[in-house]
Amino acid sequence: MEERVRESLVRVACCQLEPRVGCKEENVEKTLRFVEEAVKEGAEVVVLPELANTGYVFETRREAFGLSEPVPEGPTTEAWEETAKEHGIYIAAGIAEREGHSLYNTGVLLGPEGYLGKYRKLHLWYREKLFFEPGDLGLPVFNTEIGRLAMMICYDMWFPEVARIYAVQGVDLLLNITNWVAAREPRGEERVTMAICMGQSHVNSVFMAAADRVGVERGQAFLGHSLITAPTGLPIAGPASRDREEIIIAECNLSEARKAKRKTRLNFTMLDRRIDIYDVLLGYEALPFPW
Amino acid sequence: MEERVRESLVRVACCQLEPRVGCKEENVEKTLRFVEEAVKEGAEVVVLPELANTGYVFETRREAFGLSEPVPEGPTTEAWEETAKEHGIYIAAGIAEREGHSLYNTGVLLGPEGYLGKYRKLHLWYREKLFFEPGDLGLPVFNTEIGRLAMMICYDMWFPEVARIYAVQGVDLLLNITNWVAAREPRGEERVTMAICMGQSHVNSVFMAAADRVGVERGQAFLGHSLITAPTGLPIAGPASRDREEIIIAECNLSEARKAKRKTRLNFTMLDRRIDIYDVLLGYEALPFPW
Repeated sequence: MEERVRESLVRVACCQLEPRVGCKEENVEKTLRFVEEAVKEGAEVVVLPELANTGYVFETRREAFGLSEPVPEGPTTEAWEETAKEHGIYIAAGIAEREGHSLYNTGVLLGPEGYLGKYRKLHLWYREKLFFEPGDLGLPVFNTEIGRLAMMICYDMWFPEVARIYAVQGVDLLLNITNWVAAREPRGEERVTMAICMGQSHVNSVFMAAADRVGVERGQAFLGHSLITAPTGLPIAGPASRDREEIIIAECNLSEARKAKRKTRLNFTMLDRRIDIYDVLLGYEALPFPW
Repeated sequence: MEERVRESLVRVACCQLEPRVGCKEENVEKTLRFVEEAVKEGAEVVVLPELANTGYVFETRREAFGLSEPVPEGPTTEAWEETAKEHGIYIAAGIAEREGHSLYNTGVLLGPEGYLGKYRKLHLWYREKLFFEPGDLGLPVFNTEIGRLAMMICYDMWFPEVARIYAVQGVDLLLNITNWVAAREPRGEERVTMAICMGQSHVNSVFMAAADRVGVERGQAFLGHSLITAPTGLPIAGPASRDREEIIIAECNLSEARKAKRKTRLNFTMLDRRIDIYDVLLGYEALPFPW
């Protein structure tokens, strides 16, 4: 049986690991070990969690400030960049970024030729608002040798506008850099979180690779359940465990993301959008304000 | 233990049934039987499938035209209205609407005091484009005694803009009137469809009651799996079967939809939206066009 050509086949890995807050050198070393391990298993794109170099639960602004660094000139980004170049792979990872006296919850993207760019988290969750500035770089798409890549970070996923705006720009693979927090008493939130990934992947016809962290940090537990979904919406790797460090890997033909937007001969989802109706999405101005 | 006040408690039912294409009188009778049955089980809101009075797979424009009727002056809407008034309940149901020589795939909403209004499907799926006009009534929200209600129809769910725009307008309960089609060879699409409901319900903090049809019509199979989800995203009734007529019922405190939008003291999702960024949702004009 003749195999059909697979136009942009890549192996995508999510590294689910446990950073320790404040232990930056140790954390960066751990990310590099996980990346090496993923590369041994054939990974060409590796996603790491949010704030992978610093840990998440900062107690004070000073603590966050002290752990942050410039991007791309800081030691963490440089270490990731070196590894990406050495192995000829893509790495997307979360980092506490400092620019002047402003802090950002940032995702960086490294490629075989080095630093590709960054994304600053648009939607800050809870106490992040006490430490970080909201992102000011919009929703950037990176054209690469393998296809169109873009980053989102954790709470961004609760805003369906994010994945949609990326889809409208033709993104093939969404790199979901995350630190999903777990409820004090488990109440099925992992089912819902996975459902959001699956649904957004499907309705936007994109691959989504979500790398979460695990562990309990200063009383805050994280959810694990790292997941890779196809444009069909179905999981193709994971969910990972709730509490173990591990790597999940999926083989993805990124071109499927482009084909999947043609649902039928009469339905190209991106052209079926009713942009004549969606102006309400821009704000409350035109609305009876119900809050 | 003292029970907390539940501010707007209602029993919501989805009637999963099988209309037969062309047999309008028989179909309407069946919907009335199902509504009566749901009422016996205490339902105060009843959702029926898309095109519940006509069936779905039209062969010709003439056939669709012949089965359509004006809304609210047609016999189907009048029958549903009478039943809603008789039992003092809300009914949301799909109907083939004719206005002049235009056809619409429409949802009607009836309440204890009669006809409340209609919604015309914005996003037409596949061969619907050969028979219907795209909706021209926007995304209307109906304030009722029990809370804010709104309708969406099937393929609308593939456009996350729809549920989001309703959420921005403060909708409590989304009435999802649907005819989800099944793939020729099952490939897990029911998992994805349920995931979309769960995810959209959660990120928008709304109840969603999705009433699907079952059966095979002119070779087209439908998916069943009617489902009611809470603002947590978790199912609270269903999924129904793939192929049996049945009723699912959930008790919903619609006020939870308003509370759920306050995620934490620092996170009110509707105010966390980055409307300064979302202008891309309006169209392609500002974008490098990747198609």
